[in-house]
Amino acid sequence: MSEDILKQIERELENISYGSQPESLYNPIRYILSLGGKRLRPILVLLSGRTFSATNDQNLFNMGAVAEVFHNFSLMHDDIMDNAPLRRGKPTVHEKWNANTAILSGDVMLVLAYQLLAQLPAEKLAYCLDAFNQVAREVCEGQQFDMEFENSNQVSVDDYLEMIRLKTAVLLGFCCKTGAHLGGADPEDTQLFYQFGENIGLGFQLMDDYLDVFGDASKVGKRVGGDIVSNKKTFLLIQALMLAKDNDLIQLQYWLQIADVEKQQEKIDFVTSLYRKLCIDQQARQLADNYFQTGFECLAKLSVGRDKAIEIVQFAKLLMQRDK
Amino acid sequence: MSEDILKQIERELENISYGSQPESLYNPIRYILSLGGKRLRPILVLLSGRTFSATNDQNLFNMGAVAEVFHNFSLMHDDIMDNAPLRRGKPTVHEKWNANTAILSGDVMLVLAYQLLAQLPAEKLAYCLDAFNQVAREVCEGQQFDMEFENSNQVSVDDYLEMIRLKTAVLLGFCCKTGAHLGGADPEDTQLFYQFGENIGLGFQLMDDYLDVFGDASKVGKRVGGDIVSNKKTFLLIQALMLAKDNDLIQLQYWLQIADVEKQQEKIDFVTSLYRKLCIDQQARQLADNYFQTGFECLAKLSVGRDKAIEIVQFAKLLMQRDK
Repeated sequence: MSEDILKQIERELENISYGSQPESLYNPIRYILSLGGKRLRPILVLLSGRTFSATNDQNLFNMGAVAEVFHNFSLMHDDIMDNAPLRRGKPTVHEKWNANTAILSGDVMLVLAYQLLAQLPAEKLAYCLDAFNQVAREVCEGQQFDMEFENSNQVSVDDYLEMIRLKTAVLLGFCCKTGAHLGGADPEDTQLFYQFGENIGLGFQLMDDYLDVFGDASKVGKRVGGDIVSNKKTFLLIQALMLAKDNDLIQLQYWLQIADVEKQQEKIDFVTSLYRKLCIDQQARQLADNYFQTGFECLAKLSVGRDKAIEIVQFAKLLMQRDK
Repeated sequence: MSEDILKQIERELENISYGSQPESLYNPIRYILSLGGKRLRPILVLLSGRTFSATNDQNLFNMGAVAEVFHNFSLMHDDIMDNAPLRRGKPTVHEKWNANTAILSGDVMLVLAYQLLAQLPAEKLAYCLDAFNQVAREVCEGQQFDMEFENSNQVSVDDYLEMIRLKTAVLLGFCCKTGAHLGGADPEDTQLFYQFGENIGLGFQLMDDYLDVFGDASKVGKRVGGDIVSNKKTFLLIQALMLAKDNDLIQLQYWLQIADVEKQQEKIDFVTSLYRKLCIDQQARQLADNYFQTGFECLAKLSVGRDKAIEIVQFAKLLMQRDK
């Protein structure tokens, strides 16, 4: 993927026209969008659309901005709910301003996503609006499940996979689907792109969980072991609670009770070594790989031929092999 | 206006199809919509649409539900920001559940409004979506101004009127405008309906401020004087700060510092009598009446003739003369 695409995505995001007043409502939106990130969602829209012939790049960049603005809206509100102090190494909006501002700026961001979507050509509007409504609801459902899981001892791997499907994967599916649709794909190919996106989304989130524990802190850009410290019910922890036996399970349960700051590193070391002992690191990578492979198989069935999808497959392989 | 319209509006709201899971996300939406209210916005959509000949009632009820769901979304989020314990005499969502649930259920409600809007016929969609996007942004802008005004000593009557225009009046304008559009009005008549709605919206909010102080508690359904207790910068208070002189102003400034629960009634009594002394009660009613009259004058210019608008004018006159 060329540098140009990323530059144009950034330009598209910078050129979004906000209201001017009240500034305090719009500055947090500019702020969170300026924090950067991989811009994964706009890239997926663009590469999906370019797979097909009827592509109009402006529509794709436009839809990419819809997805990126929506994604950042959900981050702004999630950060309030999760009481997160930092996002991409910078203060979250509710920390830098306050919770009320983060609620209301988030609301406007959601509306802004719809305003960008409304710029699509009339003949594409109803389809893309329906798709966006559905994914927006699903992402909220995923966040609610995520919050509920934090207070539940009954979360299975299947529950977890369904949660990350809703919270993360469906939006990637949406990007690929609407990109393909805007590019002129037929309904079957469009659906294959949706499945591709959803599957690589599941793989992507599992890799995220994996890298949070086994990644290289200098590359990941955040402290390794954060999920362990906060007892976050990731695939790794749910699996460990299921597989650990006898003394391992007792020790794991003990460490889950420990919130003492001074013992954080010891907790991280214990849980990480238990994950390795139970081969959960390999299982997580394997499961992630399986989802990526399922995604690639979807694109092998395209009516336009798998070769047309080379660029997006290459991009997804980078995601699969990423170490940050 | 017949009882039937209100019944059908309630039925429309009850029949909205929510997701089933997670329940904790959708129950607060059912709850806030079940608290009742005047259903002013759906009624305005319906009566505006019925003024014209190409009316399809189902579209109007649909658009009415869009407006009512959006309105209740904004109440759910505003109540968090305002830290309000009660809404229509019942616990607010963030009190009954918690702030996180109120944030996320509110987000889903906003999406739900767009989902209802997406059910409109394709040829009406782009127009109504653009109108809705604009009003949704303006309402958020109004709420932000409202919050900022609470910490400012520089709020003029003009600032206040612009704030209530954004926070309240534009949504009523939207209801009248989209109702007229769906009914088949030409662009000029549609615009007249927008102006009508915005003007009666300003009148409506000024009456709200008036009734909060001078209303009959048993009819208003909430405690009289709440705005005075909380130093809310309504038209009445801004005007009093401008008109009060010498000892009156000193005493008003004194009472604005008093947050003592035991002195609430004394504060209410003083400020209310000062409003009367300065004739601010009459000024508020007069200003409200002027906005209603401006609204009626808009409908007198309709190309279809003012007689077609009899029903909505009658309804607006009830709003103008309301005592609750």
